[in-house]
Amino acid sequence: MSDPAPSPSAAGPGRFGRASAVRALGDGRFAAEIAAGWDIAGNADGGYLLAIAARAVTSVTGTPDPVTVTAHFLAPGRPGPATVTVDLVRRGRRHATAGFRLTSGPPDDPVVHLVGVCTTTDLAGATGPVRVDVVPPDLPPVDDCVAVEPGDPFPPPFMAQVDVRLHPDDLPFRAGGRSGSPRVRGWFRLRDDEPVDGLGLVLAVDAFPPTSFNTDLPVAWTPTVELTAHVRARPAPGWLACAFVTRNIAGGYLETDGEVWDGRGVLVAQSRQLQLLPPTA
Amino acid sequence: MSDPAPSPSAAGPGRFGRASAVRALGDGRFAAEIAAGWDIAGNADGGYLLAIAARAVTSVTGTPDPVTVTAHFLAPGRPGPATVTVDLVRRGRRHATAGFRLTSGPPDDPVVHLVGVCTTTDLAGATGPVRVDVVPPDLPPVDDCVAVEPGDPFPPPFMAQVDVRLHPDDLPFRAGGRSGSPRVRGWFRLRDDEPVDGLGLVLAVDAFPPTSFNTDLPVAWTPTVELTAHVRARPAPGWLACAFVTRNIAGGYLETDGEVWDGRGVLVAQSRQLQLLPPTA
Repeated sequence: MSDPAPSPSAAGPGRFGRASAVRALGDGRFAAEIAAGWDIAGNADGGYLLAIAARAVTSVTGTPDPVTVTAHFLAPGRPGPATVTVDLVRRGRRHATAGFRLTSGPPDDPVVHLVGVCTTTDLAGATGPVRVDVVPPDLPPVDDCVAVEPGDPFPPPFMAQVDVRLHPDDLPFRAGGRSGSPRVRGWFRLRDDEPVDGLGLVLAVDAFPPTSFNTDLPVAWTPTVELTAHVRARPAPGWLACAFVTRNIAGGYLETDGEVWDGRGVLVAQSRQLQLLPPTA
Repeated sequence: MSDPAPSPSAAGPGRFGRASAVRALGDGRFAAEIAAGWDIAGNADGGYLLAIAARAVTSVTGTPDPVTVTAHFLAPGRPGPATVTVDLVRRGRRHATAGFRLTSGPPDDPVVHLVGVCTTTDLAGATGPVRVDVVPPDLPPVDDCVAVEPGDPFPPPFMAQVDVRLHPDDLPFRAGGRSGSPRVRGWFRLRDDEPVDGLGLVLAVDAFPPTSFNTDLPVAWTPTVELTAHVRARPAPGWLACAFVTRNIAGGYLETDGEVWDGRGVLVAQSRQLQLLPPTA
C-alpha cells in the first residue's frame, strides 16, 4: 500500500500526544520521555504514565482502544527518559492482550514505575444493545464551572497540561473547607484542540483532584496503588463530563470510581482505582 | 525455627482449598489442577481460576491478602493439570506486586488462560479512618433465600462447590422470566465449613449468576474479558452478603460491579468485571 493508515500509536497534534509519544526500539521495547510539567508535587500524574504505556501497547497490538487496562503503581515517575516493555500474550480476532512495564534507569537494574495488563480492540464498529442505568453528572455549563490552573505550589503543574473545570459545589477544599462528600465532578478536555481518543480517556480518569479533599478526614494525599480503566466508546468531540466518587474508605485504603461521558450522553469510560490513605501522624 | 508458620498459600480444609491448591516447582512456577466439577457448561469458573493464580502469588509474596488483583481471561479452563507462573516485580514494606499467568498444555506451546497482576499485603493489622457510603444489600434471611443447587444442564456443576442463596426477587430468570433489572443479590459461603479468606473472596466475586439473566436483553452468556477484585478486609466467619449490578450495557460489552459484606457489616471486597455481550443471531 502506498498510503498506509497511521499507526494506532501515532502521537496527536497537541501536548498530550507529544508528551505521551513512544518510539519503537524493537522486541516490544519502546523509548518514551516523561515530560517535565506533568507532575503533582514532583511525581508524574499516574494517568499520564499509564497513557504512555497504553500507547506502546496499542502500537504492538495494532488496535487503538484500550477497552480494559490495569496498572499497579510501584514507584513515582520523574521527568526523563523511560522505557515501556510490551509483552504480547495473545492476539485474537477481536481483542489483543499484552502485559507491560514502564521503567527508567539502567537496563540491568531499572526502576519499575508501572506494571500492568491491557486488552485492546477497535471500538469504531462496536455495536450492541444499550442499557445504561446511570446518568451523566449534573454539571453547570462549562463557563459556570471553575478552571483549574496551576499555582504555587497548588494546583500542581499537571493542571496546565489538561483543561479541567470543576463543579463549584465540589470546590470548597480550595478555600480550605470541605464539602463533606468524597466526590469531584467537572468538565475535561485536552488543550491545543487535541481530540480525546481512547488514550486520552486513560488520562482523563486520573486528571482530577482527589475525592478525599472533600472528606472530613485529615487526608493530604492518596497515592494510587492500582488503576483500571474501561474505555467503552470513542468520545464525540468536545467537553467530557466527568464524575469521581469514593464509597469505601477503610483499613488505610480507599477506592475511587470514575465515569466519563461525552456530549452525546455516552458513557465513554469507567474507571476504578485503589488508593492508599497514609496515616496522618 | 522448628515450627514455621504455615505458608500463606496453604490450602484450607475444604473443597475450595483442595481445588485451588498449588505446588511450588521453583523459579516462580507452580503446579495446579483445574478440578472437575468447578465448571459452567464445561468451562471452569473464572473466579476459581483466578483464586488458583492468586494463591500462587501469595506463596511468592509471603503475604496472604490480594488487596488488588486483575486478570484478563484469554481462554476457557478445562479440568486437568495447569501451571501458574509468578513473576515478582517488587516487594516493599507493605505491598508486594507480581505478574502471573495460568497456563496449560505443553510448556513450549502453552495455552494461556489468564494473565494478570496482583498486589498482596497483610490486612490483619489494617487500620485507618472509616467512611463507607454504601450499605449492604437488603437480603431476606438465609433460609428465605433460594439455594442454588446444580441441575441438568443448569444451574451448572460449579454451584455444588459453593453455597449460594439468591434473593427471591432476583430469581425470575429461573422460571423463564426476568426481573428487568440487571442485578443479582444473595448470600455466599464456602462448603465444608471452610472459612472465607482473601482468596475465598476472589472466588466469591465471580460465583453468582450473571446480572444479564435479569435484563430484557436476549443474552445467553457473558464471558469475562477482565476481572478486578479489591480485597479490603478479612471477613468475619459466617455468611457473606453479596450484590452484583450492571450499569453500562453498550457496544457489545457490559460491566458488573460486585460488593461483598460480612456479618459485621464490613465491605470486605469490591469487584468489577468487563464482560462480552455476544451478538445473538
